[in-house]
Amino acid sequence: MSLGEFDLIRHYFTRPSRDAGVVLGVGDDAAILAVPPGEQLLVSTDTLVGGRHFPDSTDPEAIGWKALAVNLSDLAAMGATPRWCVLALTVPTADMDFLASFAQGFHTLAQQAGIDLVGGDTARGPLSITITVMGTVPAGQALRRDGARAGDGIYVSGMTGDAGLGLALVDGTGPVLPNDLALQAWQRLDRPEPRLALGLALRGLASSAIDISDGLLQDLGHILERSDAGATLDVETLPFSPALRACNPGQALAWALAAGDDYELCFTVPPEREAEVPALAAQLGLALTRIGCVDTMPGLRCIRQGEPFAPPAAGFQHFRPTS
Amino acid sequence: MSLGEFDLIRHYFTRPSRDAGVVLGVGDDAAILAVPPGEQLLVSTDTLVGGRHFPDSTDPEAIGWKALAVNLSDLAAMGATPRWCVLALTVPTADMDFLASFAQGFHTLAQQAGIDLVGGDTARGPLSITITVMGTVPAGQALRRDGARAGDGIYVSGMTGDAGLGLALVDGTGPVLPNDLALQAWQRLDRPEPRLALGLALRGLASSAIDISDGLLQDLGHILERSDAGATLDVETLPFSPALRACNPGQALAWALAAGDDYELCFTVPPEREAEVPALAAQLGLALTRIGCVDTMPGLRCIRQGEPFAPPAAGFQHFRPTS
Repeated sequence: MSLGEFDLIRHYFTRPSRDAGVVLGVGDDAAILAVPPGEQLLVSTDTLVGGRHFPDSTDPEAIGWKALAVNLSDLAAMGATPRWCVLALTVPTADMDFLASFAQGFHTLAQQAGIDLVGGDTARGPLSITITVMGTVPAGQALRRDGARAGDGIYVSGMTGDAGLGLALVDGTGPVLPNDLALQAWQRLDRPEPRLALGLALRGLASSAIDISDGLLQDLGHILERSDAGATLDVETLPFSPALRACNPGQALAWALAAGDDYELCFTVPPEREAEVPALAAQLGLALTRIGCVDTMPGLRCIRQGEPFAPPAAGFQHFRPTS
Repeated sequence: MSLGEFDLIRHYFTRPSRDAGVVLGVGDDAAILAVPPGEQLLVSTDTLVGGRHFPDSTDPEAIGWKALAVNLSDLAAMGATPRWCVLALTVPTADMDFLASFAQGFHTLAQQAGIDLVGGDTARGPLSITITVMGTVPAGQALRRDGARAGDGIYVSGMTGDAGLGLALVDGTGPVLPNDLALQAWQRLDRPEPRLALGLALRGLASSAIDISDGLLQDLGHILERSDAGATLDVETLPFSPALRACNPGQALAWALAAGDDYELCFTVPPEREAEVPALAAQLGLALTRIGCVDTMPGLRCIRQGEPFAPPAAGFQHFRPTS
């Protein structure tokens, strides 16, 4: 094959724009976009490196899905409506099967999320995907990390720890589980669901929010740091999936607190609004579990059965000296 | 060193925002930006892969400069005012010297261009840099590729071919040149100057524009394809630098037409406005050379001394079967 980079982008990634704000999409030096009046622009970028952020054996369709999902998760955490994205794709060879599958996974989620691909770049090199997503929110309504206040309840959506379990199953270090449970955990690793509807619903309700990419403890720590607050977390309240409940409890807790890659949202709600959370959970069909409380003492304390509890090591970190 | 990714970004890349449109910069799940009323948003992304887009021996400061420059060049080609960018940086090790030098080159150009870094991601892996730039233009005034019309003059800014010569000098296949000329060519390869002031000045004057990243013939070809037009190019009129004039004429011409990586602008001007171009060149202190004319016959024809001339092979292509 001798397709040039422009042909590659066009062939696999150009779809008609659905968003009225796309004045000019793929095919020029830059896309031309119209942000609706009264809205602010939200921008985030995330890279997935082959063999580092996903096992080399990962289905290309899952890579395409996940590369977009982890970016959309950042928009969800800000309460933004997804609008546009650009894709920088570096691949070792022009493998048409890979590209077709990758594009399939990417577009399936893009269509679900209502986000338009408006530009990109392709290069030859070790497999790496960088996506930059753009979304909009009515001015001043974005969810930020810095709004948590003492007394706010701390919540987490869905279940945490499944992606950590899924990764252990893929790399052969995980427990032996019934097939259906193993597949559920694997699915959570490969096809995370960005919590976009939740993010939109939290506008005006949550005082802060973040997505769980690096591990619950670490990500909640970012909220506390930016909000100049502390928190107490009751590890007994953490929501475990059936797959995680079938694991060694200590290991399950470590995944839930520190493994990351779940892309659930962690958010805080002022006490006078907490009564609204159960109705929201029912409306979304998504567990929203209260796992602790923001307080004034700096730092993040875990308790278990009312007693102080030392959590396992912190979450995913690039540049760990040992890896 | 055990700095986490967030610390790395903060330490080397966080600078106070200068742009009033930055509501929230680095440090949350996404940046919050305000596009000025009446302006459209321009977005482009480009990746540089180590050993592919630049030699492994390249000075990290030059890599930081160039990674931003090639992206700013896309904004220049659209006539946009640079506003914001996000940086996805993948490095094999947390080499503090590398990061400090890279950041130095990046910030030097960012400050010159008036663009704010508002977010990013770092990962461990083979060296790769993806930057997404955002700029703004008054609605409807962006320079596009699709506006060239038969009769328009074709222009190129500055000199073309120097980056091709520079690369040949770096990889040891270039000619023996006086040191000052060799250094000039090398500088053009390592520190391209995005033609931002020219892009702004071309709004309302040029009928189309593109930046020369893949080679003059190939990039002009994109204008013609999008504009459904053809062109005749007089290769004798191509502007050669002193360094290029010191080379074998055939080789110099091949670099000028096909090597790319120069990041000059190629643009078209309607005949009734061409008289304004020399004054603009004088005002900018930048050569703007008429190299041909758009016509109706499809395809791109080169002439030399009035005779048809077969140009050398086309420009830079990723996924070349032979490389």
